[in-house]
Amino acid sequence: MKKLLYGVAYYDEYMPYNRLEQDIRMMKEAGINVVRIAESTWSTHEPQDGVFDFTSVDRVLDAMQAAGIHVIVGTPTYAVPTWMVKQHPDILATTENGPGKYGARQNMDITHPAYLFYAERIIRKLIGRVCKHPAVIGYQTDNETKHYHTAGPNVQLQFVKYMREKFKSLDVINKTFGLDYWSNRINSWEDFPSVIGTINGSLCAEFAKFQRKLVTDFLSWQVAIVNEYKQPHQFVTQNFDFEWRGHSYGVQPDVDHFAASQPFDITGVDIYHPSQDDLTGIEISFGGDMARSTKGSNYLVLETEAQAFLNWVPYPGQLRLQAFSHLASGANMVAYWHWHSIHNSFETYWKGLLSHDFEPNPVYNEAKTIGRDFARLSDKLVNLQKNNKTAILVSNESLTAMEWFKFSFTSTKKYNDVVRLVYDELYRMNVGCDFVDVSAENFDGYDLLIVPALYTASDRLLERLNDFVRCGGHIIYTFKSGFTDEHVKVRTVRQPGIISEACGISYQMFVEPKRVTLKGNPFNVEPEDNEVHTWMELITPDTAEVLAYYDHPHWGQYAAITQNTYGKGQAIYIGCMVSSQVMHKVLAHAVIQAGLWGADQKQAFPLITKTGVNEAGKTIRYYFNYSDHPAECAYPHGQGTELIGGTPVHTGQTIGLDRWGVKIIEEG
Amino acid sequence: MKKLLYGVAYYDEYMPYNRLEQDIRMMKEAGINVVRIAESTWSTHEPQDGVFDFTSVDRVLDAMQAAGIHVIVGTPTYAVPTWMVKQHPDILATTENGPGKYGARQNMDITHPAYLFYAERIIRKLIGRVCKHPAVIGYQTDNETKHYHTAGPNVQLQFVKYMREKFKSLDVINKTFGLDYWSNRINSWEDFPSVIGTINGSLCAEFAKFQRKLVTDFLSWQVAIVNEYKQPHQFVTQNFDFEWRGHSYGVQPDVDHFAASQPFDITGVDIYHPSQDDLTGIEISFGGDMARSTKGSNYLVLETEAQAFLNWVPYPGQLRLQAFSHLASGANMVAYWHWHSIHNSFETYWKGLLSHDFEPNPVYNEAKTIGRDFARLSDKLVNLQKNNKTAILVSNESLTAMEWFKFSFTSTKKYNDVVRLVYDELYRMNVGCDFVDVSAENFDGYDLLIVPALYTASDRLLERLNDFVRCGGHIIYTFKSGFTDEHVKVRTVRQPGIISEACGISYQMFVEPKRVTLKGNPFNVEPEDNEVHTWMELITPDTAEVLAYYDHPHWGQYAAITQNTYGKGQAIYIGCMVSSQVMHKVLAHAVIQAGLWGADQKQAFPLITKTGVNEAGKTIRYYFNYSDHPAECAYPHGQGTELIGGTPVHTGQTIGLDRWGVKIIEEG
Amino acid sequence: MKKLLYGVAYYDEYMPYNRLEQDIRMMKEAGINVVRIAESTWSTHEPQDGVFDFTSVDRVLDAMQAAGIHVIVGTPTYAVPTWMVKQHPDILATTENGPGKYGARQNMDITHPAYLFYAERIIRKLIGRVCKHPAVIGYQTDNETKHYHTAGPNVQLQFVKYMREKFKSLDVINKTFGLDYWSNRINSWEDFPSVIGTINGSLCAEFAKFQRKLVTDFLSWQVAIVNEYKQPHQFVTQNFDFEWRGHSYGVQPDVDHFAASQPFDITGVDIYHPSQDDLTGIEISFGGDMARSTKGSNYLVLETEAQAFLNWVPYPGQLRLQAFSHLASGANMVAYWHWHSIHNSFETYWKGLLSHDFEPNPVYNEAKTIGRDFARLSDKLVNLQKNNKTAILVSNESLTAMEWFKFSFTSTKKYNDVVRLVYDELYRMNVGCDFVDVSAENFDGYDLLIVPALYTASDRLLERLNDFVRCGGHIIYTFKSGFTDEHVKVRTVRQPGIISEACGISYQMFVEPKRVTLKGNPFNVEPEDNEVHTWMELITPDTAEVLAYYDHPHWGQYAAITQNTYGKGQAIYIGCMVSSQVMHKVLAHAVIQAGLWGADQKQAFPLITKTGVNEAGKTIRYYFNYSDHPAECAYPHGQGTELIGGTPVHTGQTIGLDRWGVKIIEEG
Repeated sequence: MKKLLYGVAYYDEYMPYNRLEQDIRMMKEAGINVVRIAESTWSTHEPQDGVFDFTSVDRVLDAMQAAGIHVIVGTPTYAVPTWMVKQHPDILATTENGPGKYGARQNMDITHPAYLFYAERIIRKLIGRVCKHPAVIGYQTDNETKHYHTAGPNVQLQFVKYMREKFKSLDVINKTFGLDYWSNRINSWEDFPSVIGTINGSLCAEFAKFQRKLVTDFLSWQVAIVNEYKQPHQFVTQNFDFEWRGHSYGVQPDVDHFAASQPFDITGVDIYHPSQDDLTGIEISFGGDMARSTKGSNYLVLETEAQAFLNWVPYPGQLRLQAFSHLASGANMVAYWHWHSIHNSFETYWKGLLSHDFEPNPVYNEAKTIGRDFARLSDKLVNLQKNNKTAILVSNESLTAMEWFKFSFTSTKKYNDVVRLVYDELYRMNVGCDFVDVSAENFDGYDLLIVPALYTASDRLLERLNDFVRCGGHIIYTFKSGFTDEHVKVRTVRQPGIISEACGISYQMFVEPKRVTLKGNPFNVEPEDNEVHTWMELITPDTAEVLAYYDHPHWGQYAAITQNTYGKGQAIYIGCMVSSQVMHKVLAHAVIQAGLWGADQKQAFPLITKTGVNEAGKTIRYYFNYSDHPAECAYPHGQGTELIGGTPVHTGQTIGLDRWGVKIIEEG
Repeated sequence: MKKLLYGVAYYDEYMPYNRLEQDIRMMKEAGINVVRIAESTWSTHEPQDGVFDFTSVDRVLDAMQAAGIHVIVGTPTYAVPTWMVKQHPDILATTENGPGKYGARQNMDITHPAYLFYAERIIRKLIGRVCKHPAVIGYQTDNETKHYHTAGPNVQLQFVKYMREKFKSLDVINKTFGLDYWSNRINSWEDFPSVIGTINGSLCAEFAKFQRKLVTDFLSWQVAIVNEYKQPHQFVTQNFDFEWRGHSYGVQPDVDHFAASQPFDITGVDIYHPSQDDLTGIEISFGGDMARSTKGSNYLVLETEAQAFLNWVPYPGQLRLQAFSHLASGANMVAYWHWHSIHNSFETYWKGLLSHDFEPNPVYNEAKTIGRDFARLSDKLVNLQKNNKTAILVSNESLTAMEWFKFSFTSTKKYNDVVRLVYDELYRMNVGCDFVDVSAENFDGYDLLIVPALYTASDRLLERLNDFVRCGGHIIYTFKSGFTDEHVKVRTVRQPGIISEACGISYQMFVEPKRVTLKGNPFNVEPEDNEVHTWMELITPDTAEVLAYYDHPHWGQYAAITQNTYGKGQAIYIGCMVSSQVMHKVLAHAVIQAGLWGADQKQAFPLITKTGVNEAGKTIRYYFNYSDHPAECAYPHGQGTELIGGTPVHTGQTIGLDRWGVKIIEEG
Repeated sequence: MKKLLYGVAYYDEYMPYNRLEQDIRMMKEAGINVVRIAESTWSTHEPQDGVFDFTSVDRVLDAMQAAGIHVIVGTPTYAVPTWMVKQHPDILATTENGPGKYGARQNMDITHPAYLFYAERIIRKLIGRVCKHPAVIGYQTDNETKHYHTAGPNVQLQFVKYMREKFKSLDVINKTFGLDYWSNRINSWEDFPSVIGTINGSLCAEFAKFQRKLVTDFLSWQVAIVNEYKQPHQFVTQNFDFEWRGHSYGVQPDVDHFAASQPFDITGVDIYHPSQDDLTGIEISFGGDMARSTKGSNYLVLETEAQAFLNWVPYPGQLRLQAFSHLASGANMVAYWHWHSIHNSFETYWKGLLSHDFEPNPVYNEAKTIGRDFARLSDKLVNLQKNNKTAILVSNESLTAMEWFKFSFTSTKKYNDVVRLVYDELYRMNVGCDFVDVSAENFDGYDLLIVPALYTASDRLLERLNDFVRCGGHIIYTFKSGFTDEHVKVRTVRQPGIISEACGISYQMFVEPKRVTLKGNPFNVEPEDNEVHTWMELITPDTAEVLAYYDHPHWGQYAAITQNTYGKGQAIYIGCMVSSQVMHKVLAHAVIQAGLWGADQKQAFPLITKTGVNEAGKTIRYYFNYSDHPAECAYPHGQGTELIGGTPVHTGQTIGLDRWGVKIIEEG
């Protein structure tokens, strides 16, 4: 990437009247230098089977080129035309809820040959047509691709073959998945029942893994086609998204981001987050850290919110704060979904940079200042390199298994709640981190590894984690880690199984805490924050030192949090769901022990700081004020220049930040 | 109508033993002078295909005639016999939930030719048989007819033809409905997908409009058949009902009452409402005003509650209060559903005037006093004429569109909440009003027009509303008015679009209020009532005067409520959801400005007064005490006679009202 | 039964590795003397159609026999193999939700001939093979058998024939079920619609009764087959369960326990209950009283919890308390589901006596003390005979009808809430009771009969109840009793119909209480406990004395609770849902009047006492402390020996009980 990209998704096809010229004029005024097009409009480009019409693509490309705006062209495969479904209704994914219905996007069977035939044809037609156009800098394959829970008979058949390929024999499968239970044994391949309806959590988890593999395979197939046309200066990306809880929340359940991102030149993501009084920057940081970690490199924010919903319309200053926060995590592009608000259909109230009236408005006006600063500071801010010593280990397999085996009948907590419990506190104490996943061959380069709820893991992975500690690493496990093997079979030894060795503890029983606190408030938090909830393991320390005991009339002899020296390293085990405040204290303790406590830890949320090294090899330090009140802090690093204002900054100087303000210091 | 009707629904067919003679004796004692029969009992009257048995109809007609009780005969088409569905299962409506199941009423496809064939035959047999019977004064077609969400392939086909008829070309449809979005374009008529599953709000709204038209057409078809038999002194009516929220609540979503009532001689409705401590009279007034407005004339309350449910059993006095409240809104008939409580099946706990024991009970005993007074005062109270200067403009199209485009992901508020927010406050301040709908050619005769959430409206309607103001009318709009055109396409200009002209304002952004109040409490209400909720538009006044600003750290410069002089009239715009108390104040302000504030406004809920002119040309003034405590008020009008007690009343005299009491004064 | 059985469910088939020898060693250490096997593992024993493999059964039988552990063999019919459903998909029950899906247990159509064919074959193969094995002491048919809501076309056909057999003519059916209503008449047998979809509560209730009969018939059929093999010293039992509300709660809706238990030699049940701070012993007592009452004899607890869930892991002492509580209600066996925690599939977190690690743990260690005491005290505690003078009359018909006709639209209360309201208070005051059902020919032997919400009852039953009072019995009815006949047709006379005679009251109206109390707090309870809720009947006493009036501005003249002398007996009628505290007072009053107030009533929950007579004819008195604090009480009975400690106990002596402690005194 040569420069920062500031963009919007643009749909000429949706316009109520011809506005291309006016739109481009307004884009230029806002510093927009890239648009994303075409990924949603298959039915416009192929109005009938084999009839193609790329008029709108051509005219947008030409007009953008004339204006000096780059274009990312999407393959339009995530929303299928009416004629296709009329002709081949079974193109829609059959799920546990039955056959699909036409209407929404992202409802097809991504393994269906008819769909694949049509998809390949439109991709070749479209990409073949635009690839030599000078406006085109890259491609996006499909959009927010997932498996859409496809599980019809044809998918079931593929799954059975996948199982045979992987496990060879039914004897192995029956044993591995515990199918004797409730008479679920499969004794002949023909008898393999549809996974829809299974009550076997291991089989369910394997099917989910298989479904995630379908996504990886489908994207890889699209990339291979696009690569046939891609020019040397162009890239191929994908717009990944995250677990959705009304906004981007955590690890994506339905896609294995680490595997699926491999064929791409660069990872793209969309990040949507709470705003107004609820804007914290956590989701921007989380999504960015995840995107950056997939390929260990910079990434694109292909979509984020402009005005969006009622409760997301940004306060003055917030749009700027958000844009620079993306850069601070390593983004090279920030693009809004979408340029203009849509006048019909489904997302009418997901407002773009412009309202339905296409006129300048306060949010658009703020974007103009961002575009100006992006252009001005591009050389200094593009391609920021991060070098984190802390990583969080995440696991789609654990997430899936914990969907099935919930904490309890009533708890709404899930895997990502545990991930966020640790991530959020790292963020709040300004400890930068990467993500690693279970495919990581080693954890070299990290001093501190945090492992939330690694419920499902192979012996080999757990042994690698023991090795990491033995060789001097610091690790923090939470409850539930190590409990089952990679087939979601519970280990047949005292828990937490293999990692007991590094942790120096064991437990046999776990209960639901009711009015249970940590004995003596060892982390010195407010009384209500000293309570544990949702889950508690009754831990017996072996070689471990106890950091906290439970306070309970019957279970007071058991440990809640322990710490163990193992080889040259140290392992902390947190056996219960604790408050954010206690988690903060435990993490801080571990950060200190790992020797990672530095000057940035003198500041904490809402004052957020992020660091990286720019292409000139200089350290860039971002300071963000995620609050509605002005703030200030002493600048602890080497002297430099505040880039937005262009003023020099000295060590120890007080930096002032407006409410929702941002400053960027280039050291040296 | 020559006299007041006091009635019950009567089902000889449901009786556990032959009680006709005793029932009629008890009816006579209670002053019941009309019964409604036959609309629910097709399977009794046609036990097998083409086999007819009207024994129960004949004997009831004869017995009623002998007793001097009139009969309204219903066409029994809203509940189909077992044999019909066994023979033609597809008579049941296919909906988005799939094919129907036999059991409930109101589950058929009202467009299905087999159903229509059978329906026509039973109508001709039944009505042909009874039309000359002297007991019969009128007919009810079907019952609470709606479209039952019929949406099967045959209905879809009709819809496609309707769309072609209406819009001529797919190009127009694609453009009008924004079908390029998410690849939903239809490029060949054969490709038109089922509307079930669509994600296009405009298409959804059009389908809902089409479905409402099916109801209008079906009823019109029934009326035409019945009219062939109708004798000069007989009438045809329909039992319309309202949006149901456990009781009659607001505008009926599935029927266009104004259009559907046209072929009928008189509008009939059912009105069910909360009772006991929750009895306010609002639903009686609302349903009555709507029924009266459909044809600008008196109406029938074909069903209302007697004992009904656990929580509706009336306190002593309430049944009387309710009965006279119906008359005060212009009803000529009050009838209970139903005479006796039913011993089996579904509505066993929807109790009638009699309990299951058929014996006199406190509620029945109170009905006797009503029957006596109705008979005694019939000449003075029948055919009450109302002359309101205030009207509320309602819109089924807006209601439907706002079902799709809700205020937010979490809000449960709907169109009818806004309608009721204004209606209820008018009621509480004793301002009588009519309803008009979007088909109104003009608003002549009204001084004040209130327009709640007119989300969907044609340019022409909005221009008519501007004209109304320009020519001296007073208007109050709430938020969301004027936002989309009649195809639910958002206008492409600053909001509120066309009505900006009369309102003298514009806005581009809207947000969700959290802890937002009106600055400086301009309406002087309790602090908690000064808060706004659910929705707020960030209004910039142009020529308008600001009645209230928002109090908010970032949006304090925007207006919440404005008032504008335009031509000879005035337009108030309320940009946010306010409390009842603030709405009350704004409405009172508008009523005063429109010159409509009168003597009746000195009283307010729970003391309700209603006025009209009787056949003798004299003014009738009803006074109701909707409270559990006795009340009194000074009588401000000309001298007259209190009709129930038969005592004279002088101007300025204090009138006393028992708890749940009623008085009726005939002026002059 | 010769001795107390202490057991576990054991699944050799589920073991992750061969542990049989170690398991048996650990069982012996814990005093386990019986295991239950084979009921869940059909697919292991018949891996393909007609291919049998009983290896695991054989080896477990031999090993158990060698160790002196008895075996109960289950017929494995409640969970069907994969091959069977692949071959005959329609073996799965079609319900109102459509066809079934393979995966879970208990999802078959228990009337399907293909299923019955396969079931009979595996039963004959398995039972024929094991019946002569010396380890086998008995058999369990199927498991927790219910009808699984089977309602497909074949079941519907059987139902129509059942209706014709029972009612002979459609005229009778139309009249009895009120089918004229909403045009539901059936005028030809061919027209009989599927009961799925019916809105007729009477028909629904009849179908539920028919479905319960399917269970009775199916179990009877299985018993007849097993009986062909059963040896003289062996028994056949069934594992009945209860209404499930996250634990065993009340009368089982889907099985008629009294009818279904007839063919069995002994009744078996499973009982699961809240634990930790929520352990009260009520469910143990309730389930035991019900099981004992079905055949008037001792029973088996075939399943209860060991560690179970997060929130059920017992505190120290609770497992012992529970075990002896079962014995105190007449159980001869206490068995845990299950021996070991399962490593895959569905019930991984329903933990057994052992955790997944198979090692001794605190719960297992406590079981060892129980096993030891069971063995030591077996002769004294086995075959305890109870002689209760109080009974509760329960009715599946009333339960079903009240599912359809709920208290109100919003109430979540059901029939079993009323049953438990009375049962729990009897338990808390240490009044032992039996259950009787509506098939009871008389109530001889009981002094006090409690009749909660007998909504549905034949004239004959109600007359028998009147007779009971007339002849000197004491009876307590709650609201809703006597309201409908056995076809859920509301009686056509003043309520409560036939029992008005004994109760000396009548009512015509019932309402929902809001802020209604009992006038003057007649039972002297805390103000909040004096409130009534959910339901109130407006009672007019005839000959009855009023125990409580309502306090309400409009309904204060009506009675809430009455008492009437009738013949030699007395009938109390409770017309509203009262608090536990008021129910306690009313029950105590009735117990006193019935002459049943004794020494045990000086103690109350949490100090629970239970009594019976052992085989030696001596009175056994259990004392349980259901609390987390030590307790003591004066022992009021004749001198004897405390069996656990082996110490003498004198009349009047203070007995101390540990928290969650138990003592057992043998009198004389």
